[in-house]
Amino acid sequence: MRAEAAAAASPKDFASLDALVRPRSVALIGASDEPARIGGRPIAYMKARGFKGAIYPVNPKRKAVQGLTAYAAVPDLPEAPDLGIVAVPGELAIQALDALGEKGCRAAIVFTAGFAEVDEAGQAAQDRLTAVAKKHGIRMLGPNCLGVFNATIAFYGTFSASFEKGWPIPGRIGIASQSGAYGTHVFAAALDRGLGTEVCITTGNEAEVALGDVLGWMAQAPEVEVICAYAEGIRESAGFIAALDLARRNRKPIVMMKVGRSRLGGQAAQSHTASIAGDDAVTQAVLDEFGVVRARTTEEMLDFAYAAAKRIYPARNTLGVLTVSGGAGVLISDAAEAAGLAMPPMPEEAQARLRELVPFCAPRNPVDCTAQVTNNLPLITEFTESVARDGGYPSILAFWSQVAAGSSVGPVLHRQMREVRAKYPDRLWVMSMLAPNKVREYEADGWLVFEDPARAVNAIEAMGRFGAAFAAPEPPPPPAAPVVALPPHTPSEAVAKALLGAAGVPPVPEHAAPDSEAAVAAASAIGYPVVMKILSPDILHKSEMGGVLLDVADAEAVRHGFATLVDRARHHAPAARIEGVLVAKQIKGAVEMALGVIRDPVFGPVAMVGLGGIFIEVLKDVSFRRCPFGPEEAERMIRSLRGFPLLDGVRGRPRADVPALARALSALSAFAVSAGPRLLSVDVNPMLVLPAGQGCYAADAVVEVAAEEAG
Amino acid sequence: MRAEAAAAASPKDFASLDALVRPRSVALIGASDEPARIGGRPIAYMKARGFKGAIYPVNPKRKAVQGLTAYAAVPDLPEAPDLGIVAVPGELAIQALDALGEKGCRAAIVFTAGFAEVDEAGQAAQDRLTAVAKKHGIRMLGPNCLGVFNATIAFYGTFSASFEKGWPIPGRIGIASQSGAYGTHVFAAALDRGLGTEVCITTGNEAEVALGDVLGWMAQAPEVEVICAYAEGIRESAGFIAALDLARRNRKPIVMMKVGRSRLGGQAAQSHTASIAGDDAVTQAVLDEFGVVRARTTEEMLDFAYAAAKRIYPARNTLGVLTVSGGAGVLISDAAEAAGLAMPPMPEEAQARLRELVPFCAPRNPVDCTAQVTNNLPLITEFTESVARDGGYPSILAFWSQVAAGSSVGPVLHRQMREVRAKYPDRLWVMSMLAPNKVREYEADGWLVFEDPARAVNAIEAMGRFGAAFAAPEPPPPPAAPVVALPPHTPSEAVAKALLGAAGVPPVPEHAAPDSEAAVAAASAIGYPVVMKILSPDILHKSEMGGVLLDVADAEAVRHGFATLVDRARHHAPAARIEGVLVAKQIKGAVEMALGVIRDPVFGPVAMVGLGGIFIEVLKDVSFRRCPFGPEEAERMIRSLRGFPLLDGVRGRPRADVPALARALSALSAFAVSAGPRLLSVDVNPMLVLPAGQGCYAADAVVEVAAEEAG
Repeated sequence: MRAEAAAAASPKDFASLDALVRPRSVALIGASDEPARIGGRPIAYMKARGFKGAIYPVNPKRKAVQGLTAYAAVPDLPEAPDLGIVAVPGELAIQALDALGEKGCRAAIVFTAGFAEVDEAGQAAQDRLTAVAKKHGIRMLGPNCLGVFNATIAFYGTFSASFEKGWPIPGRIGIASQSGAYGTHVFAAALDRGLGTEVCITTGNEAEVALGDVLGWMAQAPEVEVICAYAEGIRESAGFIAALDLARRNRKPIVMMKVGRSRLGGQAAQSHTASIAGDDAVTQAVLDEFGVVRARTTEEMLDFAYAAAKRIYPARNTLGVLTVSGGAGVLISDAAEAAGLAMPPMPEEAQARLRELVPFCAPRNPVDCTAQVTNNLPLITEFTESVARDGGYPSILAFWSQVAAGSSVGPVLHRQMREVRAKYPDRLWVMSMLAPNKVREYEADGWLVFEDPARAVNAIEAMGRFGAAFAAPEPPPPPAAPVVALPPHTPSEAVAKALLGAAGVPPVPEHAAPDSEAAVAAASAIGYPVVMKILSPDILHKSEMGGVLLDVADAEAVRHGFATLVDRARHHAPAARIEGVLVAKQIKGAVEMALGVIRDPVFGPVAMVGLGGIFIEVLKDVSFRRCPFGPEEAERMIRSLRGFPLLDGVRGRPRADVPALARALSALSAFAVSAGPRLLSVDVNPMLVLPAGQGCYAADAVVEVAAEEAG
Repeated sequence: MRAEAAAAASPKDFASLDALVRPRSVALIGASDEPARIGGRPIAYMKARGFKGAIYPVNPKRKAVQGLTAYAAVPDLPEAPDLGIVAVPGELAIQALDALGEKGCRAAIVFTAGFAEVDEAGQAAQDRLTAVAKKHGIRMLGPNCLGVFNATIAFYGTFSASFEKGWPIPGRIGIASQSGAYGTHVFAAALDRGLGTEVCITTGNEAEVALGDVLGWMAQAPEVEVICAYAEGIRESAGFIAALDLARRNRKPIVMMKVGRSRLGGQAAQSHTASIAGDDAVTQAVLDEFGVVRARTTEEMLDFAYAAAKRIYPARNTLGVLTVSGGAGVLISDAAEAAGLAMPPMPEEAQARLRELVPFCAPRNPVDCTAQVTNNLPLITEFTESVARDGGYPSILAFWSQVAAGSSVGPVLHRQMREVRAKYPDRLWVMSMLAPNKVREYEADGWLVFEDPARAVNAIEAMGRFGAAFAAPEPPPPPAAPVVALPPHTPSEAVAKALLGAAGVPPVPEHAAPDSEAAVAAASAIGYPVVMKILSPDILHKSEMGGVLLDVADAEAVRHGFATLVDRARHHAPAARIEGVLVAKQIKGAVEMALGVIRDPVFGPVAMVGLGGIFIEVLKDVSFRRCPFGPEEAERMIRSLRGFPLLDGVRGRPRADVPALARALSALSAFAVSAGPRLLSVDVNPMLVLPAGQGCYAADAVVEVAAEEAG
């Protein structure tokens, strides 16, 4: 699937956005002489920053705009511009785009609002705009977007007012945002923190260029090494997936703010844009698949981007902590455990050596060197180097609080920290201190600096997630796609089970037996003990009339049971048609799980596994993944459940047959793809998982199928 | 219980710490002429800041210390000082304390380290130190503590080096910390953020004065309006509980960092101090009981303290959001839902009116006024005032990003925000903006300012939790304490059930019946259907020999069943002593819960409720509460479980008898208190809860009892 997705949109395809972000010439349709107006700002900004390309203002009423020669209309331009920026209202925007296409321009940014974000008439107008873009093969950003800046070449195709705060500073962070307001918010917040954002692209209504295209462009562009993305809803999947895949291959971390996580937020997202918010759990599964790290807050997004700009992504991350305060050490341990970041102990010999240096230190990890070291400063180097050398941690957090700010100890500490770090430059070195005036000095030495150690821990953990994703081997190919012939309508339970069984999701073995000897044959094929049930279309409540026998142990008991069941049925319902008995495998001691498939409107079939019964609805302990995938991935999904211990022998229970469950889940994912878009959903609940080696069986299944179109 | 605890330590008792924090005269034993030494710093600080009281340096080798008359020994002092500070090592510290007591001094701070934090000999020395303090009635802080400052009177009884960063600035935040390093870290971090910390008290080894005493002092001291507390382990309960109760009554919020939440952190906490870390869930239950808000990070602690200093604590908190960016609105909605902060919609009429003002605004809540308002500035006032007036939200968050920083819109916006806020001064007004140079101006107008809106949301939510706790009515008295006579050892299941049954935790009704007619009488007393089991001390596995009969429906069936069971037993085990049968209520369709009691080493008996079966161990979905408590509180505990929908009619199930379960849980809590310290634990699992009106029954119970001392 990854290979397919990558084939669907290659780096070369993404490079088709070059003219949008790196134009050599720009025409501005609706150019204004007023530098503060929407049609004036891009020209004012480019002039102020020294854009080297040609700028062609188009304005029928003026000979010159902001000192540049103006053109009355697009056909009058001296050449086909690399990029056209459209800042004229309504129908004029559509006409301008057409004229740009006629002139030979193949990229456009449409600022104009009043399209799909407004009403149905706007949607219709947007459809016409898009048709014009497609007719000419124009890569079009917008409409209703705030545009683009690329500080590397001083290109400002945007009317954002945020440069009142200041110009972008150098630094290879790229911002890709569906919301113009939020994109500039991130730019401005980054600026306040001294973070360089080279490129910012906002996509607005995404009539043609979507967020995936922008992420893909950034994944292959040298201007960008770290991507901050903001999404309200993903509108198309192939480009998005290809972009995430390319970014992962190129080791470019994506930090994503995807809003609409909450019920409340989902509501607001829908009232804000025309986007399909989709199911947050599905989006999360797609992001997890490619190692995209989700930020919960803007602060966290910038923390992660700041850390990522170091380009040190430990594939097997662990944290070593050096602290001058035991309390802070505990606090950091709490934060690391909450974040899922391992803090293995220092080697015993190293601990012993440190204990000799400072008798009452706590050298396990956190390594608490105690404030005593401030009376014997060379010990600081000893402790710090021991954490790096003996501990071998890929990430090291040093907590020095306000000690680093002190006029006496501060400068010595700084020199020591610089020297030790220089010996181990491949580690992620992070300082937590209260010394605002020292931050830039430590950063210049290659340190990351966070005042709050818990924020440092979260950023370190995120770098490890990137590292693990970048180092992950190619997943093995998913199982071969089975041949699936869906019935014309949603089938009965029996047919559904048979369909799934043929695809590798085994139903509970059962056979209809018209007579006693057939029942014995069925039972010996299934294996004893078996369950026997009366088989009659006229008897619905079998248990109540004694029509179910459990624990039938051998052939003699089957014969006896057959007679008993038929007797009881005749006695209970003399008129009932009796077709014989159902002989089924008796399942005991199984763990009840649930498997499912839903069809996401954007990402297609998505498989799910969770605890069975009502716990799936009450506790929502489930894992999702795009179909198809192999058994290894299926097992990872199963192991990620909070309830996994139920399958893993908790409290002396036997371990369940997880490999069998993983095979069934993987097979279900392949089935979902082969079945095609008429498959609406699958619900296998309960999926009974027996002890290791004994398999798992679907006890009930619903396969929801869209009715075949007539003809 | 609250009343008792309050009686145990009244405001007057807490005022006994006055001499520690507000001394009029201070003797420093081990005074140094060097201002940078431990024995020199307090004097240097007090001189620098103009402490008005008398300072008596004690040093046998000098006539003067830092320009003050020095005394050779404590008996030479001209008066009994209000406070003695002990900065001499080892045995000398104990002698100094004794001399201070002889002189009539009744408060001391002991800086000296090398006591219980080191080893057993240190513990023994500390015990002698404590005995000296108690002999003289001295309130002693430490040993091994960093001391106290009270900026209001320029009292600096501390050797902290953190004043190199700067002196405390005015502001009624008090810091109470078990760790000196962490206490000064919070002071320094607050200083960097411009937050005033009037008082800081660090408790060190807590040989006499413990964290609870300090919290209690702050709860009644005018110097402190907001308390930031740091704890590694709570060592005593009565004072701690009385302090939390007093703070709640006096509407003083406590923000607490309690570390050791994690397995990892718990480990580090124990290696760091001699404290009993206790069970974090128990501590959490105690903090919840009194509305203490726990901070996860130092940043969060200071965010909450900053917000709390406004002293606006909405008892029924809801959030109204005004935003200039739809994306930020969604992000804020996500954060509010994650924090559990309600965002009810604006009234329909107000929404309609706002839609008339700005046709494409989204006025529900978040109220997205869109960037259009920046072209028509009076609309900003309209929108803001509508959120306050029509929405009526106690808390209002305005998101203006960098708009607030703009040179054109910024000043107008600031005036408008000030004017609207002034009309509704009782609300919690919070601004989220990217305008560092405007922060002080907005704060001066009464706004809270957070750059990150998610941090703002968390702080607003915390203020609501304080408000709810401050407004909560006195809880009704717990049920009357039953008379409990514990057996000399851990009793059998039957005796355990009888004990609990007498206390109000009903066991599944069952009666031993020696003969057939007794069985019929028992069954009719219990009600049909019943379960019958063979009763024999020699038959352990009843089911396997057919010794259990289910669904026994009437008297005839009981007689028949009695004969059948006795027959089978004789056949199966001819030598077995047969005592008759056990007749029990047949429980069907119950939800399995678990109740329990553990004895916390600090807080005494603590009751627990959770989902029964193995889910309690795998999913850890439990609620704890100090014993005793009434059924209202018990029901709150039950409703707080994530699995509560299982009891509440999820998916068409009948609702369970939650009131009966709550009565049983409350009764168990009263039992635990009456039973006294010999009760080690109670485990009722499963507790079978029938549909509403049908009660609940303990199917199994263990009551663990410490063996009676001989004699």
